[in-house]
Amino acid sequence: MTIHSPGATDHAGPSPNSLALRHLGIHTYREKVLFMRSDCHICRAVGFTVQSRVLVALGDRRLVATVNMVGPELLDSGEAGLSEAAWDALVAKQGDTIVVSHAPPIASLSHLRAKVYGHRLDDHAMREIMGDIVAGQYSDLHLAAFVTACAGDRLDTRETVALTRAMIDVGTRITWPQPMIMDKHCVGGLPGNRTTLLVVPIVAAAGLTIPKTSSRAITSPAGTADTMEVLAPVALDGAGMRRVVEREGGCIVWGASVGLSPADDVLISVERPLDLDSEGQLVASVLSKKAAAGSTHVVVDMPVGPTAKVRSPEAAARLSTELQKVGRAIGIEVRVMVTDGSQPVGRGIGPALEARDVLAVLKREAGAPQDLQDRALRLAGSILEYSAAVPHGTGLALATGILEDGRAWEKFVAICESQGGMREPPQAAHRRAFEAGFRGRVVEVDNRRLARAAKLAGAPQAPAAGIEFLAPIGTEVERGQPLFFVHARARGELDYAFEYLAGQEDVVGIAGEP
Amino acid sequence: MTIHSPGATDHAGPSPNSLALRHLGIHTYREKVLFMRSDCHICRAVGFTVQSRVLVALGDRRLVATVNMVGPELLDSGEAGLSEAAWDALVAKQGDTIVVSHAPPIASLSHLRAKVYGHRLDDHAMREIMGDIVAGQYSDLHLAAFVTACAGDRLDTRETVALTRAMIDVGTRITWPQPMIMDKHCVGGLPGNRTTLLVVPIVAAAGLTIPKTSSRAITSPAGTADTMEVLAPVALDGAGMRRVVEREGGCIVWGASVGLSPADDVLISVERPLDLDSEGQLVASVLSKKAAAGSTHVVVDMPVGPTAKVRSPEAAARLSTELQKVGRAIGIEVRVMVTDGSQPVGRGIGPALEARDVLAVLKREAGAPQDLQDRALRLAGSILEYSAAVPHGTGLALATGILEDGRAWEKFVAICESQGGMREPPQAAHRRAFEAGFRGRVVEVDNRRLARAAKLAGAPQAPAAGIEFLAPIGTEVERGQPLFFVHARARGELDYAFEYLAGQEDVVGIAGEP
Repeated sequence: MTIHSPGATDHAGPSPNSLALRHLGIHTYREKVLFMRSDCHICRAVGFTVQSRVLVALGDRRLVATVNMVGPELLDSGEAGLSEAAWDALVAKQGDTIVVSHAPPIASLSHLRAKVYGHRLDDHAMREIMGDIVAGQYSDLHLAAFVTACAGDRLDTRETVALTRAMIDVGTRITWPQPMIMDKHCVGGLPGNRTTLLVVPIVAAAGLTIPKTSSRAITSPAGTADTMEVLAPVALDGAGMRRVVEREGGCIVWGASVGLSPADDVLISVERPLDLDSEGQLVASVLSKKAAAGSTHVVVDMPVGPTAKVRSPEAAARLSTELQKVGRAIGIEVRVMVTDGSQPVGRGIGPALEARDVLAVLKREAGAPQDLQDRALRLAGSILEYSAAVPHGTGLALATGILEDGRAWEKFVAICESQGGMREPPQAAHRRAFEAGFRGRVVEVDNRRLARAAKLAGAPQAPAAGIEFLAPIGTEVERGQPLFFVHARARGELDYAFEYLAGQEDVVGIAGEP
Repeated sequence: MTIHSPGATDHAGPSPNSLALRHLGIHTYREKVLFMRSDCHICRAVGFTVQSRVLVALGDRRLVATVNMVGPELLDSGEAGLSEAAWDALVAKQGDTIVVSHAPPIASLSHLRAKVYGHRLDDHAMREIMGDIVAGQYSDLHLAAFVTACAGDRLDTRETVALTRAMIDVGTRITWPQPMIMDKHCVGGLPGNRTTLLVVPIVAAAGLTIPKTSSRAITSPAGTADTMEVLAPVALDGAGMRRVVEREGGCIVWGASVGLSPADDVLISVERPLDLDSEGQLVASVLSKKAAAGSTHVVVDMPVGPTAKVRSPEAAARLSTELQKVGRAIGIEVRVMVTDGSQPVGRGIGPALEARDVLAVLKREAGAPQDLQDRALRLAGSILEYSAAVPHGTGLALATGILEDGRAWEKFVAICESQGGMREPPQAAHRRAFEAGFRGRVVEVDNRRLARAAKLAGAPQAPAAGIEFLAPIGTEVERGQPLFFVHARARGELDYAFEYLAGQEDVVGIAGEP
């Protein structure tokens, strides 16, 4: 057994539970895993086995990890490995000595069990659960149990308020000198709906404060942060964000780098593969991020359509009410704008293609996508009317004026420069048309399958990849006319997208004679 | 890129989605994991990412796995690795070529979601879920969601019946020529309660049929299969089990090797780390295994006590009723015997120490543990009374006679020989006494902490390890008198157990003057 033990004291000698780290480079997403040899002396003696939860200490840092066993292929006797999430959290180096012991019991699991068994969770219980979650105490199985126990309508409004407060409490909270802080949010599911990049400069140009944090894509071909990133840096920390907002009145940065509502990111990591809808968790996720960003007034864009996230007016009404109730409880004024979710917005789907749409609108180019512009102006107008200086019914005209006289474009350029410098969106090397099989009129568009094709083409990892959509509902098309172009960085990726599309001929539904 | 592609056809060339396997030897318990390089061409092109569920094909075999990403430390370009569970399931060899593609959607997840959202599951839905579970389609997150959605009292009796039937359907079911097949079961939680090794030979010696399958330890220091294994082989397949039962009328084999109710083993793998109680799942687990084994008449030993699994008479009554109702629905007659669960049974805790207790009773040695003998005789008597030839009230006397005249011992020896040969239980190299801190009378024993100490001492992996318990409730002890001995294979393991016990002085509660 070879144990390097720089951390042990002279007298005590190496701890019997210490192991030398070897870097294995295994990415498990967020789950912290300790890889130990199945014949390891510690496992044998202390009774650790696969799936045991153990406390790993490296110097002053410690975390709880799940044990996986490995054989001599990966580790020598006396060695241990970590998943990358654990390696980074411990700031580990090759050869460092870790000490492994039994994980302390997780106190908040009793609250989790109570919820599973049908009891309500109060502020205190939610706070303890969120605290343990951000401290990395919960395994993926515990997280899945929590998400399941809160899914559907299993959280009542009081519990959703408690969850939202707890999620705010366990993260950073930004404060601003201004009494009113504007924000917007879109309940996802509509490709190309990149209004943020228009709303922020309009609202900021009007003199209001709108420090916007956005996410990267989770399951979509582009998140707002991905699209903004092809135009300017977005990974600013809290201080960097504050500097931009102080100077320009607004910003568009990546929320995760600011550290807002970190519990939300953890919960999303299991909600996504489980694909469970939870109204309470959706509301808490949205509003905890807004509250943590210091926002006081939020307009929510809620696209409704058969292939959008919210599929019926009834669901939209229920979700709107809940957002407003919970918002009120935590001091945020929420206005919901139900919008058309039947087809993509603008022409681009994918970071660079969406950015081009945004630039066309800001620069008032001929042929700029009118639907994107209209949606952005409505949202911006609604936000402007939160200001006492803007009478009800005049917001839209004010927003339109700011866009048309070039102030929005100037403000956008200033924000980009302030975030680190504006840049040109990249262009894809390969492009291929998906053509109409027959003559007719476009009557239906499947958002989900278009998004899937854009992802197969490489978006968002390849920022220039995606779909250039040319056939909104109502378009009259000839046989062989391109319905959309797929853009990709490599031929192989183009092929993947078209292999998928070959089986999906009604991704754009045409009424006519086949 | 180096791709070995022995399986590809001459014309097609290697599939673009093929990778060469490298053995990594990573044990993840049951979860099937595919390790791919994060810069892998397939991941990039098809959009796989960490946690993606993918279909892995090797020749004719295929399975669904979860993706983990690794760097160049573990895999060369064009290579992939598998967790041991996946490696074994695919019968993989170093250098084999796998083809990776998107996993087909899991149809039964819609039923799982319905249950999460509060709907009831019928026979059809349960059957589809169990089918997908045994086919390995569910990730650990899906399994955790299912277990959570069914926890506590969330399954009504009809759903429990549906779950039980589904668990039976998706596994092997043994049939026997005899119309009445006896069985026993103990609702766990009581160390040393090894009555099976006494009940089976008594019942079989009386001419009834009792083909007993038992489990290994999951969280305890010994399962019945572990204890039996120190006396005879237990890993018999279905045919081997049948041969023993045809010859001797009974057997005591390891259930997992027979393949009964495989869905139960999968569910237990996530129930255990989640530590969620579920009455419905407990009932389905017990009765699906019995029905799959072909049993028609079952006596359930249900120990009740503050540190046993069932803690109150009310909980015992509820569980008994449910076991009987569900048993009736699937054609099994269930009788429940509520027993004392306040302290360990016999003296041994750990495979070999428990086996010694059993042998002492069977051989009618002076000093054989009377409590173990009494419990076993009551259970055996109750089973014997299922026979039309045994009048009500005479079972206990009949069982006692069979034990006392040596027929039980002869039958036990014959069963052991028939299972592959009887052997001597091993003896531990190290033993140390845990002594009473003061004079008094034993009033309380903590089953859970005694079991924990036995596991720290090495049980059940080290079969000779465990605890020899000498101070049942009511014992008068002097200061310094041994309350129990810890047995271990190595000094280090003895130390671990005593380190733990140092903080647990009231593991045996004494009333007296400290």
